[in-house]
Amino acid sequence: MLTITEKIIKAHLVEGEMHRGEPIAIHIDQTLTQDATGTMAYLQLEAMGVDQVKTELSISYVDHNTLQSGFENADDHKYLQTVAMKHGVKFSKPGNGICHQVHLERFAKPGKTLLGSDSHTPTAGGIGALAIGAGGLDVACAMAGRAFHLTMPKVVNIILHGSLQRGVSSKDIILKVLQLLSVKGGVGKVIEYSGDGVKNLSIPQRATITNMGAELGATTSVFPSDEITYEFLKKQHREEDYVELKADEGAVYDETYEIDLDTLEPMIAMPHSPDNVLPISEVLGMKVDQVAIGSCTNSSYRDMMTVANILKGKTVDPEVSLVISPGSRQVLNMLASNGGLSTMITAGARILETTCGPCIGMGQSPITNALSLRTFNRNFYGRSGTLSAKVCLVSPETAAASAIAGYIIDPRVLEFDIPEDPEYFTIDDSMIIEPDMELSAETEVVRGPNIKPLPINTPLKNTITKKVMIKVDDNITTDHIAPAGAKVLPYRSNIEKISEFIFMNVKASFHDDCIANDGGFIVAGSNYGQGSSREHAALAPMYLGIKAVIAKSFARIHRANLINFGIIPFTFVNEKDYNDIDEMDTLKITDLLDIKENTPITVQNVTKGKTFQVEHNLTQLDIDTIKAGGTLNLIRQNQK
Amino acid sequence: MLTITEKIIKAHLVEGEMHRGEPIAIHIDQTLTQDATGTMAYLQLEAMGVDQVKTELSISYVDHNTLQSGFENADDHKYLQTVAMKHGVKFSKPGNGICHQVHLERFAKPGKTLLGSDSHTPTAGGIGALAIGAGGLDVACAMAGRAFHLTMPKVVNIILHGSLQRGVSSKDIILKVLQLLSVKGGVGKVIEYSGDGVKNLSIPQRATITNMGAELGATTSVFPSDEITYEFLKKQHREEDYVELKADEGAVYDETYEIDLDTLEPMIAMPHSPDNVLPISEVLGMKVDQVAIGSCTNSSYRDMMTVANILKGKTVDPEVSLVISPGSRQVLNMLASNGGLSTMITAGARILETTCGPCIGMGQSPITNALSLRTFNRNFYGRSGTLSAKVCLVSPETAAASAIAGYIIDPRVLEFDIPEDPEYFTIDDSMIIEPDMELSAETEVVRGPNIKPLPINTPLKNTITKKVMIKVDDNITTDHIAPAGAKVLPYRSNIEKISEFIFMNVKASFHDDCIANDGGFIVAGSNYGQGSSREHAALAPMYLGIKAVIAKSFARIHRANLINFGIIPFTFVNEKDYNDIDEMDTLKITDLLDIKENTPITVQNVTKGKTFQVEHNLTQLDIDTIKAGGTLNLIRQNQK
Repeated sequence: MLTITEKIIKAHLVEGEMHRGEPIAIHIDQTLTQDATGTMAYLQLEAMGVDQVKTELSISYVDHNTLQSGFENADDHKYLQTVAMKHGVKFSKPGNGICHQVHLERFAKPGKTLLGSDSHTPTAGGIGALAIGAGGLDVACAMAGRAFHLTMPKVVNIILHGSLQRGVSSKDIILKVLQLLSVKGGVGKVIEYSGDGVKNLSIPQRATITNMGAELGATTSVFPSDEITYEFLKKQHREEDYVELKADEGAVYDETYEIDLDTLEPMIAMPHSPDNVLPISEVLGMKVDQVAIGSCTNSSYRDMMTVANILKGKTVDPEVSLVISPGSRQVLNMLASNGGLSTMITAGARILETTCGPCIGMGQSPITNALSLRTFNRNFYGRSGTLSAKVCLVSPETAAASAIAGYIIDPRVLEFDIPEDPEYFTIDDSMIIEPDMELSAETEVVRGPNIKPLPINTPLKNTITKKVMIKVDDNITTDHIAPAGAKVLPYRSNIEKISEFIFMNVKASFHDDCIANDGGFIVAGSNYGQGSSREHAALAPMYLGIKAVIAKSFARIHRANLINFGIIPFTFVNEKDYNDIDEMDTLKITDLLDIKENTPITVQNVTKGKTFQVEHNLTQLDIDTIKAGGTLNLIRQNQK
Repeated sequence: MLTITEKIIKAHLVEGEMHRGEPIAIHIDQTLTQDATGTMAYLQLEAMGVDQVKTELSISYVDHNTLQSGFENADDHKYLQTVAMKHGVKFSKPGNGICHQVHLERFAKPGKTLLGSDSHTPTAGGIGALAIGAGGLDVACAMAGRAFHLTMPKVVNIILHGSLQRGVSSKDIILKVLQLLSVKGGVGKVIEYSGDGVKNLSIPQRATITNMGAELGATTSVFPSDEITYEFLKKQHREEDYVELKADEGAVYDETYEIDLDTLEPMIAMPHSPDNVLPISEVLGMKVDQVAIGSCTNSSYRDMMTVANILKGKTVDPEVSLVISPGSRQVLNMLASNGGLSTMITAGARILETTCGPCIGMGQSPITNALSLRTFNRNFYGRSGTLSAKVCLVSPETAAASAIAGYIIDPRVLEFDIPEDPEYFTIDDSMIIEPDMELSAETEVVRGPNIKPLPINTPLKNTITKKVMIKVDDNITTDHIAPAGAKVLPYRSNIEKISEFIFMNVKASFHDDCIANDGGFIVAGSNYGQGSSREHAALAPMYLGIKAVIAKSFARIHRANLINFGIIPFTFVNEKDYNDIDEMDTLKITDLLDIKENTPITVQNVTKGKTFQVEHNLTQLDIDTIKAGGTLNLIRQNQK
């Protein structure tokens, strides 16, 4: 009596037992990367010394940094293309589309595991894959054939009843779910969809829902694989990838919710959180300045043709800027062939390249104080590039209808045709460069001047005597540690350079102090490293010689990143000892090579002439990782 | 016995005689602006207190700053849209296309004068307009009904014989002309085309040639208006705009050249100058990294269909990034309707928005050390955004053919169909917002926080006693005075802010010194203000209180800009006096209100206890302008 989640995990289980909350490891069938995280992932793959990837399929997409305002982006693309050829990875050229949309069309398979270095990797759950977002190193490890470690998730069942009215979209379903569960409601859980309403949703509609499962904080989301799945795969000329997949009768769920599609109305996520959801009826008539349609959430052929049908014969309001980014080259080409694109252009839409584009703040920042309606997945403060903008998340139907009106309207008031999927999608994978074993040998990996070799940690020493480089308070985020923004992001392939920005807004001299003292320790309060999963917040301190962080407590993902890069995450046995340490105190820790599970360690504060106890809660694998100087070294050791 | 140039000037002459080299003023029928220069032009129009523009047609395009990486671009667009409505100017929304391409299609008329705040305004010479690029203030003055002052140009006749081979393009004609005349060869001249070869060139082909007349330094370039012109206008549903226009038999030209089209081969401009031209046969086989097709030079329907026909059934080389930006919404929509766009997408082209895009360094910077083939008009060092890139200028034919091959090839080796113009172009002006007298009254001009009111100078005082704020050497460029680049350009609508950057790389304290001393004088060597025509190099010093520049000599355009904004351009009677002045010396000039033509003035160096003589070479109009505190004030005075 298994859920879909359990069935897929069971078929891929490498370590552990399928008991909720316990650590497990699963085999990964497929990986994907995008360019903004991919350069680091492939630098790590190279550092592992892996010749050819071990997965069934690994693919490197380019969809984030495609504006190319400087040589860095294009150099990254070239690096990604050549490193892919070198190591047996498919490469999707810039212009081929958004990773999740292309993957859904061409590669995602029901029942397979997919690990992607992008938080919206769960999009492929719409086709019945167990698709999980992770950091670049985890994806690199999966490419190297290593299992993916996670906590066995709880499983939530969302039962869908009936079918959507015209003008109501699967986007409205996931906005409803976000309203129900909040942006924290999915943490540690897989969201499984079931019910008679499932058969009334096409694969791209299901993928919109699993895509935004990321906004629930869920491990992933997954739909059954059924006759609709088969039809979609057949239209993509890959019916051989079909397997049926459904939960057993009597499968046990941790939570269950029901949604009635017949009565669902269009929804809108108001600023500045995807779960700040209202029915559209509460905001009708608000003046709109910008409408942006696209992103991995809503850029399928079906979405685009829905928009075209709504725009047909109409003109965008003179006060509105409507921008449309079709999700893939397949979608764009079909629109260019069937008149859909011409309909959009005639209505007055600006057609952007088939990339993430404005969803990740790459262009199309709206006017000051704008109301911007977007079919995207996140409306975080400032993400649009205009701090004063009010960004709302809506369906393509609501977006297109409101672009014509000039203010927010309910798309159900409009007459328009609901598009049919074509008999077959137009298949043309010529922008996906196939790896070639013969070419692999002679391929030279091209590294522009901004792409530096990945720094590697050294194995753990038995005794460390170093100074405290910084002492920080509670709730330090990864943004405090490794800031984002246009000043820093171009250096994401260059740890040496990005390390200059570490803690820049907390202690400007941190970088220079680390260089002058050959690294040292970080002392922190509770919840250290909360926020994003960015690896640079561990990798750059490692580069600067940080050997351990001694904190009251850690955020989960950052702690894992520290271990991955060989930095020990100690916690105070007695939190009051935090008060007795000052910046630039010299700490001495001995017998580190004898470190054992569940055994505290004594730290000497040489400066103050005191000692205090720390603990680490490391598993044996964690200990082995740290002794090796990080996951990359451990893998290399095991390869010998 | 008049040339075309003389016929159009004669019909528009307001002041002066049509003697080569003498000052004249002509009436302007049409104006255009683009967004990067337009904000300043309309701020100046507003400062003139003009209610409705006096031209037959004025139009405000948005084609430069369309990436919108921050609120500034969108706010500029909104300002431009509302100020256009307020003052009777048409507004072409972002997405409607590149100003010169759209203007050629929809508005340019043979025999009319067009003044545009973009150096490639001469594109409209392809249809027989006298189309001149100028600074924003000159365009603002033209909108206010003021005549445009220029020096009566020499006229050069370029006689075209025969017809182009398949694979040879009008782009190759203008590259050939650049090879003949160099980037300085057109200074003070209008280039007129004639000969039996003219009838074998369509209007967009002619426009490619007149467009790149800007690279010759020419005042403008112009073609006859003939039956080909009539056909083009008819296909645009505006045959009523046709007038025949040709030089009289026996018209006198200052120079004459002949080009044989039958034997012309494809040409290429090598880095880093448009006149560094070679026949393609000398560079065959060079490996290509990027191919970029578009820009106001080569983005017409004909250009795009030529590209589509070459790409048909082919695939772009895996190592090449091919980007295509169609020139206008008309072109894009026709390609989306007739399959041309699908052909490009199928071949593997990346389709960009219909804007200037990579031609002005707005995205698509190529990889480090790239060879980038571009159909654009300028290949200046660094303009692509990648300093190490080698950018070459070629025809669309050479570009498309080389994108398939992966290296430079001669497009004459390929079989492809030469496209026919359609029976009618698709007419849809719905993205051009018409001014409306009724709406005008109630329109509120929207100014984002980065758009500041234009600072206005005060009338000249009789005595000025101020300090020397900076003393600089010979050959100071407008880049020294008002730097460009990503750090400064977003503030082009904000003189207060941009003034912080004035002389930043020469004397960092210049701004603060001016504020502390309430302005003062600039002392300079020879050729002060060489380089671009940017107004900010005069406007921002004026804002900072600079009253006069005392130099050994001035560059022509910058001197005009100084006068326009009420700063007196003095030259030393005795250049050796330059040596006796130091920064922060106090200078005193009296009796300024008695300033007369051809009369030197005495300057007291109060600090040094010396005097020296300066002259000004101002015309009476210049003197009136400076006394008023600049052109804007003079116009306002005359309106009273």
